[in-house]
Amino acid sequence: MKIVRAQDFDLKREVEYGSVEQNAAVRQIVTDVKREGDAALLRYTEQFDRVRLDAGALRVTEAELKAAYDHVEPSFVTAISAAAANIRAFHARQKRNSWMDLQPDGSLLGQIIRPLKRVGVYVPGGKAAYPSSVLMNVIPAQVAGVPEIVMVTPPATGGKEGIDPYILVAAAEAGVNEIYRIGGAQAIAALAYGTDTIVPVDKICGPGNIYVALAKREVYGVVDIDSIAGPSEIAVLADDSADPAYIAADLLSQAEHDEMASAILVTPSATFASACQAEVERQLAELPRRDIAATSIADYGAIVIVDSIDEGIEVINRLAPEHFELIVEDPLVYLGKIENAGAIFLGPYSSEPVGDYFAGPNHIIPTNGTARFSSPVDVDDYIKKSSLIYYSKEALLANGETIMELARREGLEGHARAIEVRLRKEESQSGTALEGKAGAYDGDK
Amino acid sequence: MKIVRAQDFDLKREVEYGSVEQNAAVRQIVTDVKREGDAALLRYTEQFDRVRLDAGALRVTEAELKAAYDHVEPSFVTAISAAAANIRAFHARQKRNSWMDLQPDGSLLGQIIRPLKRVGVYVPGGKAAYPSSVLMNVIPAQVAGVPEIVMVTPPATGGKEGIDPYILVAAAEAGVNEIYRIGGAQAIAALAYGTDTIVPVDKICGPGNIYVALAKREVYGVVDIDSIAGPSEIAVLADDSADPAYIAADLLSQAEHDEMASAILVTPSATFASACQAEVERQLAELPRRDIAATSIADYGAIVIVDSIDEGIEVINRLAPEHFELIVEDPLVYLGKIENAGAIFLGPYSSEPVGDYFAGPNHIIPTNGTARFSSPVDVDDYIKKSSLIYYSKEALLANGETIMELARREGLEGHARAIEVRLRKEESQSGTALEGKAGAYDGDK
Repeated sequence: MKIVRAQDFDLKREVEYGSVEQNAAVRQIVTDVKREGDAALLRYTEQFDRVRLDAGALRVTEAELKAAYDHVEPSFVTAISAAAANIRAFHARQKRNSWMDLQPDGSLLGQIIRPLKRVGVYVPGGKAAYPSSVLMNVIPAQVAGVPEIVMVTPPATGGKEGIDPYILVAAAEAGVNEIYRIGGAQAIAALAYGTDTIVPVDKICGPGNIYVALAKREVYGVVDIDSIAGPSEIAVLADDSADPAYIAADLLSQAEHDEMASAILVTPSATFASACQAEVERQLAELPRRDIAATSIADYGAIVIVDSIDEGIEVINRLAPEHFELIVEDPLVYLGKIENAGAIFLGPYSSEPVGDYFAGPNHIIPTNGTARFSSPVDVDDYIKKSSLIYYSKEALLANGETIMELARREGLEGHARAIEVRLRKEESQSGTALEGKAGAYDGDK
Repeated sequence: MKIVRAQDFDLKREVEYGSVEQNAAVRQIVTDVKREGDAALLRYTEQFDRVRLDAGALRVTEAELKAAYDHVEPSFVTAISAAAANIRAFHARQKRNSWMDLQPDGSLLGQIIRPLKRVGVYVPGGKAAYPSSVLMNVIPAQVAGVPEIVMVTPPATGGKEGIDPYILVAAAEAGVNEIYRIGGAQAIAALAYGTDTIVPVDKICGPGNIYVALAKREVYGVVDIDSIAGPSEIAVLADDSADPAYIAADLLSQAEHDEMASAILVTPSATFASACQAEVERQLAELPRRDIAATSIADYGAIVIVDSIDEGIEVINRLAPEHFELIVEDPLVYLGKIENAGAIFLGPYSSEPVGDYFAGPNHIIPTNGTARFSSPVDVDDYIKKSSLIYYSKEALLANGETIMELARREGLEGHARAIEVRLRKEESQSGTALEGKAGAYDGDK
């Protein structure tokens, strides 16, 4: 793991948007499913997933869900259910109420906050089929009050018997009961446009391969989508009060994700840097996924030497990492100075996997520097707001002329007249001169 | 204005993403500004805006801002300042605090809510230069606490003297003091990538022509952008307790925006429908922007007859209109049933221009059916959240084995080891068997 000085360190990664061929293939699939519905959906499922189904068999049955519980260890059920409870408790604290501001003139202004009506969650097949991601995508939607949460996942990910039972148990623990065995760009298109079998959704969430990501971009606008995640990242800022074995293990836990993952240690201590470097080498040699982790460490890993913790914080703010561990003697001193980080882990016991699996906060967190302007998934991602305006007669009489002045200034006479027609009517009905009522307005017309 | 039955009514509009040539032109401009900085910015400003500037002259001076006040009527200053106060008060109610959940085991979990650091607001030139939009884009950012708000607007929109003084006064009243005379795709690129003169921003907001919209899409990911607005829309649901003159005026106030704007009346009364139809004709004839409004009404206007107010609500929910006026005898009865509407205006005095200019809620509202899943601009659009995890030693000892089980189930041994290294160290230090401590976990390992 290379050691560099802060001034020589720069992490730049280009975002992947797929090849021309991949984009064209996805557009074709999306267009076909939009036009042909189930027929195209089943055709592409046979072509890509090598599973021949009819439309009636797309939905996972209640019996399959029940059976999944017999295929997994009871300890897994206990663990996933404990994690689900923590995630639910944390997200429940994010719920907001609709509110109103009641004005003395009788007007009411407010924001109405409602859950989205129907949300689709994509769960990839293969090695990236993570039960924890099912919880992290589904539970915030459920807490938000989304009445219809539908999951899609490629068929036959659990071998001949059907879908991976761990995924099904996670879905059931999270509270999903509408699941379809479809995957890839065709599943995204079916969720966005609907088919005879699949009712279309308002938003599509969840990770997937490049075809899934491109399909989500393609249908964005028809439905909402979550952000498209880049490779995972950790940055650790530690001083020599930290244990190099902890730091190395945390860096490697990120590096094992994939070759493009990034693990960065920032420290003011050159001695500590060397100790961590040695620990990474030692632990790497014994890691099952050492090939992946070694590539990630070589290509995107670094130990950055800074002059002070404060300079370290500046490096972190520049990186805006997805995960940030602050393992220094008095972390609270620096908390207020951290401007950009998706998730902040404080102290020696807050190892990143604590947040990945269990503590409660979401593990879907902005990557690739976007923590500068975006946020971990939470309940807000599954709600929509409507403004509420109830204007009283008194308020309109008091402010109508002001509103008309602003409208006319913008050349929008029709806007002014929508107010004027009301003022004139009230004027004629009350027999009073308008000017006498418009007390709140004091301009020089 | 055509009258149709609900079952025969469908509003479908395709979203405009520009021609191949426009996309190519924008990509070229963005690439050039990214690479050449000020040189390209000034070159394109000369080419498109016909104004030759050097970099030192790009920023609007304090003296120009002051002078703008001498060019506008005092009544305008009074009006815009009253509107700004209302918008500020409404958005101030949306502010949220960072929060923490303190667990009995000593752990702290929370969300840290921070303003974005630097936001760019685009203000178009020409007829679409609306002072009210300056307020609606800037004030929520300011209320959120964004320390740096920078405005860009094409040069010479106020004739030979420089920038439209009404825009400058609105900017000053909203609290912007960093303004650059640049516009078009080149301004968007400069905000996203920065130049020697322009410090790059975290998010770009504000309306613009097709080149501006395409440039925002192009830089999305490098910075955040607001949503790209479609043509404006109003839907009114009214019974015969309403005044046809009010309804017609409100429909026309939307139709005058542009030829693509949409104005829909939904009503259970055929008599009332005819009365409104006649009123629209009568008022249209006298409207300064009657050519625009007439095209809009002919192409995208309709009066939809429904069997009941409840069926009317269903039509509204299907439309998910940007603006929705509910002018029926007891509007509160129906409020809970409105699922999809960007802004809801209740009762006869809540004419849409009340919200466009003055009441306080934002006038930047989702269009084209996207109110199904998105929301009016508010303070949330200018903040970012970080998760906070401080896990106590006690919590890690109690839950470590569960976390390891979940990690290993996903094949991520490195994740499990980041926990294990800590458990083993504590175990060796305390001399106690680990199992004795892991009381919260009851699985069958």
